[in-house]
Amino acid sequence: MKALRLKNWGREPELTEVDRPVPGAGEVLVRVEAAGLCHSDIHVLDAAPGTLPYRLPFTLGHEIAGHVAALGPGAHGGPAPGERVVVHGPWGCGTCTRCAAGQDNYCDRRGSLDWHGAGLGRDGGMAEYVLVPTARHLVPIGDLPADQAAPLSDAGLTSYHAVSGVRNALGAGTTAVVIGVGGLGHLAVQILRATTPSRVLAVDIRPEALALADRSGAHLSIPMDSDTAAALRKATGGVGVDAVLDFAGAQPTLELATQVLRPGGELAIVGSGGGQLTVRKPGFLPPGVRLSLPFWGTRQELVEVIALARAGAVHVETEQLPLRSAPEAMDRLRRGLIRGRAVLVMSG
Amino acid sequence: MKALRLKNWGREPELTEVDRPVPGAGEVLVRVEAAGLCHSDIHVLDAAPGTLPYRLPFTLGHEIAGHVAALGPGAHGGPAPGERVVVHGPWGCGTCTRCAAGQDNYCDRRGSLDWHGAGLGRDGGMAEYVLVPTARHLVPIGDLPADQAAPLSDAGLTSYHAVSGVRNALGAGTTAVVIGVGGLGHLAVQILRATTPSRVLAVDIRPEALALADRSGAHLSIPMDSDTAAALRKATGGVGVDAVLDFAGAQPTLELATQVLRPGGELAIVGSGGGQLTVRKPGFLPPGVRLSLPFWGTRQELVEVIALARAGAVHVETEQLPLRSAPEAMDRLRRGLIRGRAVLVMSG
Amino acid sequence: MKALRLKNWGREPELTEVDRPVPGAGEVLVRVEAAGLCHSDIHVLDAAPGTLPYRLPFTLGHEIAGHVAALGPGAHGGPAPGERVVVHGPWGCGTCTRCAAGQDNYCDRRGSLDWHGAGLGRDGGMAEYVLVPTARHLVPIGDLPADQAAPLSDAGLTSYHAVSGVRNALGAGTTAVVIGVGGLGHLAVQILRATTPSRVLAVDIRPEALALADRSGAHLSIPMDSDTAAALRKATGGVGVDAVLDFAGAQPTLELATQVLRPGGELAIVGSGGGQLTVRKPGFLPPGVRLSLPFWGTRQELVEVIALARAGAVHVETEQLPLRSAPEAMDRLRRGLIRGRAVLVMSG
Amino acid sequence: MKALRLKNWGREPELTEVDRPVPGAGEVLVRVEAAGLCHSDIHVLDAAPGTLPYRLPFTLGHEIAGHVAALGPGAHGGPAPGERVVVHGPWGCGTCTRCAAGQDNYCDRRGSLDWHGAGLGRDGGMAEYVLVPTARHLVPIGDLPADQAAPLSDAGLTSYHAVSGVRNALGAGTTAVVIGVGGLGHLAVQILRATTPSRVLAVDIRPEALALADRSGAHLSIPMDSDTAAALRKATGGVGVDAVLDFAGAQPTLELATQVLRPGGELAIVGSGGGQLTVRKPGFLPPGVRLSLPFWGTRQELVEVIALARAGAVHVETEQLPLRSAPEAMDRLRRGLIRGRAVLVMSG
Repeated sequence: MKALRLKNWGREPELTEVDRPVPGAGEVLVRVEAAGLCHSDIHVLDAAPGTLPYRLPFTLGHEIAGHVAALGPGAHGGPAPGERVVVHGPWGCGTCTRCAAGQDNYCDRRGSLDWHGAGLGRDGGMAEYVLVPTARHLVPIGDLPADQAAPLSDAGLTSYHAVSGVRNALGAGTTAVVIGVGGLGHLAVQILRATTPSRVLAVDIRPEALALADRSGAHLSIPMDSDTAAALRKATGGVGVDAVLDFAGAQPTLELATQVLRPGGELAIVGSGGGQLTVRKPGFLPPGVRLSLPFWGTRQELVEVIALARAGAVHVETEQLPLRSAPEAMDRLRRGLIRGRAVLVMSG
Repeated sequence: MKALRLKNWGREPELTEVDRPVPGAGEVLVRVEAAGLCHSDIHVLDAAPGTLPYRLPFTLGHEIAGHVAALGPGAHGGPAPGERVVVHGPWGCGTCTRCAAGQDNYCDRRGSLDWHGAGLGRDGGMAEYVLVPTARHLVPIGDLPADQAAPLSDAGLTSYHAVSGVRNALGAGTTAVVIGVGGLGHLAVQILRATTPSRVLAVDIRPEALALADRSGAHLSIPMDSDTAAALRKATGGVGVDAVLDFAGAQPTLELATQVLRPGGELAIVGSGGGQLTVRKPGFLPPGVRLSLPFWGTRQELVEVIALARAGAVHVETEQLPLRSAPEAMDRLRRGLIRGRAVLVMSG
Repeated sequence: MKALRLKNWGREPELTEVDRPVPGAGEVLVRVEAAGLCHSDIHVLDAAPGTLPYRLPFTLGHEIAGHVAALGPGAHGGPAPGERVVVHGPWGCGTCTRCAAGQDNYCDRRGSLDWHGAGLGRDGGMAEYVLVPTARHLVPIGDLPADQAAPLSDAGLTSYHAVSGVRNALGAGTTAVVIGVGGLGHLAVQILRATTPSRVLAVDIRPEALALADRSGAHLSIPMDSDTAAALRKATGGVGVDAVLDFAGAQPTLELATQVLRPGGELAIVGSGGGQLTVRKPGFLPPGVRLSLPFWGTRQELVEVIALARAGAVHVETEQLPLRSAPEAMDRLRRGLIRGRAVLVMSG
Repeated sequence: MKALRLKNWGREPELTEVDRPVPGAGEVLVRVEAAGLCHSDIHVLDAAPGTLPYRLPFTLGHEIAGHVAALGPGAHGGPAPGERVVVHGPWGCGTCTRCAAGQDNYCDRRGSLDWHGAGLGRDGGMAEYVLVPTARHLVPIGDLPADQAAPLSDAGLTSYHAVSGVRNALGAGTTAVVIGVGGLGHLAVQILRATTPSRVLAVDIRPEALALADRSGAHLSIPMDSDTAAALRKATGGVGVDAVLDFAGAQPTLELATQVLRPGGELAIVGSGGGQLTVRKPGFLPPGVRLSLPFWGTRQELVEVIALARAGAVHVETEQLPLRSAPEAMDRLRRGLIRGRAVLVMSG
């Protein structure tokens, strides 16, 4: 079968022919229908040798939707052959307390593993088939289109997990701000609308991103410039914002967040845009502020994201491409030319 | 009556004679029995002119216990004359959503007020009487000794609020670390023991503080040195710590916290020891970590702290002094010579 | 001023002239703009002598919106004269732990008081003015129409509190059922839509109530008949319902609830329709089921309901009448002829 | 191997010789070290034919501790051979949302299965070996004695789950009442002490049970008689009790609970003692009361119970017997002659 594999650090991945895997005991073979492309794929491609613990070569792709092609011996108790599924991508050790609770994203042994999940040190979904080590990594999707389900497993799940972490601050009468309305941010806007009564404000520097925020249900979209902090404070009647989700993580966006947070407010830093925040007491943060650094999400949260999408409450804007266009798509992603989320769609 | 008043920035406070206040409509006059001394008093005394919004002069003292001496007209609905009370010290605007919910510590108008509470821009409790603007700032204490109740209103409440903010991470089988076992930290150890099933580890550089941690119920006390991170990781079976409460807030303690936190762990920074933490993604913090900067606590939490103390679950180690010794006590506090919490006890 | 007063048990209330009250210390005089009519008013009118602890006479009306007319001495710290407000109607003792936390609805001394709130043993809002004992019972409403704000203080607040009590069961992918789509139920549908991601199903015996459910945003409206349980189970794919809110509380509706609940599901009994449920173990309830008997709501929840309404997320369907039509309106309410919520509107 | 098997409804179980099972794909064979005896075993033995869905014959025993003897193919990712474990006994369908989250006790397909777990329609642990269908049903216990671990998997877990369901009501300054201090109740007292700051009161009719409550850490033990309600109300200063956990579930105990609950209080009905409660509105229950019918517990909660026991916070009082004494032990259990928890201990 065809697979897009990373063979050498610092070199482009190659679309090559490899053997179709055969599921061993407890394993599940999934026929891939779609695999999403993610900025973190670019981070992997651009990593300096030795900075990531992964052993080469491996197949890329950690946002995977498809259907069960074959079960290894004893892989019962999960989806049956033919059932359509999405893959919960963060694969932990499988045995620590976190993993046993479906929180592989915070696996206690993460630091000692030489992988972080599907397509991240283990063979992923940019291939015709992917071998999933255990049925508990699969979540049924019914008839949800594969190009929707695949990006929901990272872009959607990461956004959902970030919102979950600040949801206690987002009761009726509160305000949430989403900074950066791209592949993740436009889903965060939808998730906030679907799961909280908060007023949702969106901030981005790009006019087309503000238009995407509007389509996603933001109550108000505000361009990122020198007046943004004042505009946000005004939009909250001077009170300040209950929660900021920063999907950029750049220096100006982190600083904006600190200027608009309400006392006791929440700041979730999702984006890895190179910005940094200095925390000290007393400092320039309002009293009681909480910062979180959410990473991906739990299996149970993926179940919930899929439920939202099947109910029509969340829709990913995607650009679909064939597997052979992956190298070109990665290049365009690197240059910021992808609109919404790029998804590789496998041919029948 | 006698009162210890701050008259000029950069000058020592003076014990002077002032008129006993008369409670106006809605106000409550409290006869002070005890007033605690706090590091934040030193911060006020040492503040450069113009850095704090307070108008001079005012009476110091924000940890206040006593009994109701007189009610102003309409101050019904709270404690009756003679009833013993502790004062909830953070006084906000009184009308914003936070204040209405008893969260004056996170008052939405804090930035525009010229006070922060009793003894912090408003006349406080280092005097024979204190005027409390509304009965909702009072919490009954029954027969709890005043030298206990007073420090519980800041040292106890701040610790309790910090623990409340991380309690969700502290189920059965988890580990909490208290760094800095002084006036606040020794109460945090007790509060963790009384309100969570966590294993409680204490860290301090001073042998007598480690002894205080032991008396306070810590499961294990560990000296702060170059091996502390390794010792803490070992004590958790290599998993890492679920929550760190840093009552020092110095550079080495914040760095220690980042080295021992478990993925998804909580770090509450309580102390203002001048340390700073750089937050970025990806960075040296484990995935999913949450930071909080708790400040003082809510009225409801003060009710709960007092309940713990009355039930015998929390005991403050105090050094009691007469009001006239306040200047000397402040000097000793500044030089780190106070053991536990210094409390000024008013004579009958 | 004019006031609708209950003078004798078992007799109709009378519209009589009484002195306009003068606010004493800490009290607030509110000029009434609108007062809602509630089924519980009928329960009071129809109560047998001796069954309620209230002393006669008193003015009816516990759903009250208006503006501050005058402040008694010391009633500062709340809304200013002229400010528009709604009254938090359950008035407790004011000093117990519950009341101090704004939970007057669960006042610990409720059993020993001879009132339950405004218009319930104490003079209420079916009058030109009402005297509110303390500013903490007032919640600002900005420019929200009075005919909206008034019913939100009971019909809205009770629904909101019932939803709050089961919200933990209502994550993404879950199903909630509202039984009885009248004055409270149509608000519950809207509150569920605004504050949870649940699929909301509505059940009623009346076609016009099902139409109201549709207008209120129910995903599906189902007539109450012998097939309802089967229809609800089918609508959940056989899994069962995560939460039922029963606003009828009649025998058939309670039995329906027990037939459709999922293991671990929640049943909130809001209506006082005379039905009763026998609870035993093992019994006919699914394992893990939780029952709640919510009553009215807290001050903080009223703040949140008002915020939802001001944001356009909740709208009460009302029938507006002048104060002099109150007796006639009560008669129509008793006979089930009021559509939505009846609100008495005071003339300028 | 030897196994205690139920062969016919209404007949005593027989200790017979059966083949030692061989683990198939994904299955784990556990060498039993200890198996607890439970009142629910008696319910099974005494069930009328046709009332339980189980197919005969099967081996009894749903409280099981031991060590991994052999792994079937693909049963990796869980405990390794030789590792000591306890079995999470409620076995659901394994694929519904509840089971995927470790909540097999509330499996959505429970009604359509012909088993409820180990020893409940499937071969259980009153044998030398037990076959566990998947590694996710196992929780490591380290060096915890088997006679402790076994009863913790039902007596301990059920108590823990009941406490978890009411924990939100049990902050500092609150009161919890445990009615019935037997095999479960004495663990509930310990769990309340270890995981909440509540004052814990215990009620039982038997003097030796009150002594057991005292040993378990109850703050106060009160005999069950006509004065109990008054004594409980007095012990709470007239306020009422925040949570009642009724491990008897008899008519007098349920009625006691309704007499002492505080408004907004919680009643968890754990025991199946034949009592029933009539719920209606208005009724004799205080406003805002919540009832729960907890059943067994989740896998994650079992992890937490084991952690508590390993930390020394929970200790089961047991009476140990050899497997061949099982029939006699069941007879004594039926007649109420077992003190604490009876545990069958397998010989080497």
